[in-house]
Amino acid sequence: MATQGQVITCKAAVAWEPNKPLVIEDVQVAPPQAGEVRVKILYTALCHTDAYTWGGKDPEGLFPCILGHEAAGIVESVGEGVTEVQPGDHVIPCYQAECGECKFCKSGKTNLCGKVRAATGVGVMMSDRKSRFSVNGKPIYHFMGTSTFSQYTVVHDVSVAKIDPKAPLEKVCLLGCGVPTGLGAVWNTAKVEAGSIVAIFGLGTVGLAVAEGAKTAGASRIIGIDIDSKKFDTAKKFGVTEFVNPKDHEKPIQQVLVDLTDGGVDYSFECIGNVSVMRAALECCHKGWGTSVIVGVAASGQEISTRPFQLVTGRVWKGTAFGGFKSRSQVPWLVEKYLKKEIKVDEYITHTLTLGEINKAFDLMHEGGCLRCVLSTDA
Amino acid sequence: MATQGQVITCKAAVAWEPNKPLVIEDVQVAPPQAGEVRVKILYTALCHTDAYTWGGKDPEGLFPCILGHEAAGIVESVGEGVTEVQPGDHVIPCYQAECGECKFCKSGKTNLCGKVRAATGVGVMMSDRKSRFSVNGKPIYHFMGTSTFSQYTVVHDVSVAKIDPKAPLEKVCLLGCGVPTGLGAVWNTAKVEAGSIVAIFGLGTVGLAVAEGAKTAGASRIIGIDIDSKKFDTAKKFGVTEFVNPKDHEKPIQQVLVDLTDGGVDYSFECIGNVSVMRAALECCHKGWGTSVIVGVAASGQEISTRPFQLVTGRVWKGTAFGGFKSRSQVPWLVEKYLKKEIKVDEYITHTLTLGEINKAFDLMHEGGCLRCVLSTDA
Repeated sequence: MATQGQVITCKAAVAWEPNKPLVIEDVQVAPPQAGEVRVKILYTALCHTDAYTWGGKDPEGLFPCILGHEAAGIVESVGEGVTEVQPGDHVIPCYQAECGECKFCKSGKTNLCGKVRAATGVGVMMSDRKSRFSVNGKPIYHFMGTSTFSQYTVVHDVSVAKIDPKAPLEKVCLLGCGVPTGLGAVWNTAKVEAGSIVAIFGLGTVGLAVAEGAKTAGASRIIGIDIDSKKFDTAKKFGVTEFVNPKDHEKPIQQVLVDLTDGGVDYSFECIGNVSVMRAALECCHKGWGTSVIVGVAASGQEISTRPFQLVTGRVWKGTAFGGFKSRSQVPWLVEKYLKKEIKVDEYITHTLTLGEINKAFDLMHEGGCLRCVLSTDA
Repeated sequence: MATQGQVITCKAAVAWEPNKPLVIEDVQVAPPQAGEVRVKILYTALCHTDAYTWGGKDPEGLFPCILGHEAAGIVESVGEGVTEVQPGDHVIPCYQAECGECKFCKSGKTNLCGKVRAATGVGVMMSDRKSRFSVNGKPIYHFMGTSTFSQYTVVHDVSVAKIDPKAPLEKVCLLGCGVPTGLGAVWNTAKVEAGSIVAIFGLGTVGLAVAEGAKTAGASRIIGIDIDSKKFDTAKKFGVTEFVNPKDHEKPIQQVLVDLTDGGVDYSFECIGNVSVMRAALECCHKGWGTSVIVGVAASGQEISTRPFQLVTGRVWKGTAFGGFKSRSQVPWLVEKYLKKEIKVDEYITHTLTLGEINKAFDLMHEGGCLRCVLSTDA
């Protein structure tokens, strides 16, 4: 390729500081070094974690940076020693790496990977602890090891999943975060069985993916909880069978659910990131076996609490990151499931815009009617 | 039997009010009604839960009452419809009932039982919501459905396990609470695998039983944590391989353990009942898979807290009651294991006294050198 080994200047949305509108800049993207992959991003969606860091709530957040972690693209070039992808491969960047060699990957017990975390956690690449992005010579930090709000990005080779080139990238970009997180919370983390009663707190993309996961797992009742009753109509299409709006009740929501289910739900999922709701989600679980999974990301410094008796009497409190999916191994499998129409993806896309309209996309995210907004990166 | 159908007057230790010495009284024990069993208690041990209620820390605690829940005896008579035990059977009263018919028992997911909880929780028997104990006509509440600090007690038929008559009652009385709680926390609740690293907070009877359980499960390292370093010598005999005294360190104990284990332990057990220690026990677990089990009983109103990130990154928070053992089914199995010398029991008994010396026994419990004190009920 003509660009291989060269610095590429392209458009990217730079977050210069927290809470200030992103600015479309001409960004210089350095060539990939050993073990790195440069990807031409074609489509990127927005996720609440982007908004969380952009809003300054993430203590690990570094500025200026290029946000974005739910995307799809095509490999432009690879650095030395990269064997698993090559230029032209269709890929999904994975903020959750999978090296296959570290203590975590080898454990068989988790999808977390320790190989590049020390670098991605501080916005740089492993090999030289530097960024591949710059604007007029000023380095711009990476974000979550993905930085997909750019026409080109550089990721570690352990952070990119090669997918079927038949898959439409403008759709399957969603398989980079929210949809797998919800499905996997049900399938991998909670392991919901047929006949179970499930409660879902928060009916955004992740909550709806939890509903879909619970439906395919054979749950008998899927109770959606949200303070916006307008969400129920959409939620039904994803499998939610009953709707509860906490604002319609004077009793604490956990008590409402316990009453509604003769003792509590078998599984609950917190898909908001609110620590009070996390407590309610645990406490609405059935004594003896109810399991609650924290999926949402709480603001920094906030803590969850409950009486230990809740656990001593058999409830289990868990959490999930990327739904427990091993990224490089399983994102391609999710893409295949989508192609076979076994999982929804298109249905989450409520808006499409361009990278240049990204600030409008952030505004949309806070409106009730928006699930996922997919941006094309064409200039 | 001569006493069948008659009120029996016998000696019992009555707790007239919280924190006041127990008083040995002549207590009238009414005959068992339908579905009830009257048991001649021969040996009873003391457990911290007795001290907890006696100390006024249990909001459900009712006075006057007869405490005690770790004991062994012989069936004196049975009420109408009782088929699973008969007079002369050797039994262990079970504060955790097992009816086999309720939603809990049928779930296959928990050892909790719902059948008599509504009565035992308020110190009475199910059939008439009254006590079978009285002193000069004044009713004395039952405790945990067992009330073993008495020469005779009345329990529900779902709350009594028939055991091998060859078993020495002065030993196997311990299989009514503390030892199964520790063993089961490892075997049933955590399901510790061979090669695991285990941390145990609190090296009393329950903590030592956790150590024994972890040793038989093949744990590679069993780290005991206690603020009394004198306990280490005894703990070694139960399987503890390393000892950490938090007082020897300036860093938080969770950090000490993370450093000591290259990232954290696979399983931790809180066997004290201290909510700060419960947090430390969770947070010393390895990211990705570490599981913490709350075994200790915290004071009423106290809460556990942590950052949700601890769970989102793969730690699991659980609890256990009676170690997850189904009482009537599995206590006899534990007795058999003891008879085959597969589990320790004798080694926990550091003191033997008589029921008349019970206040001395409570004092002993707070001394470091005491694990279990077994009282004979002979007058």
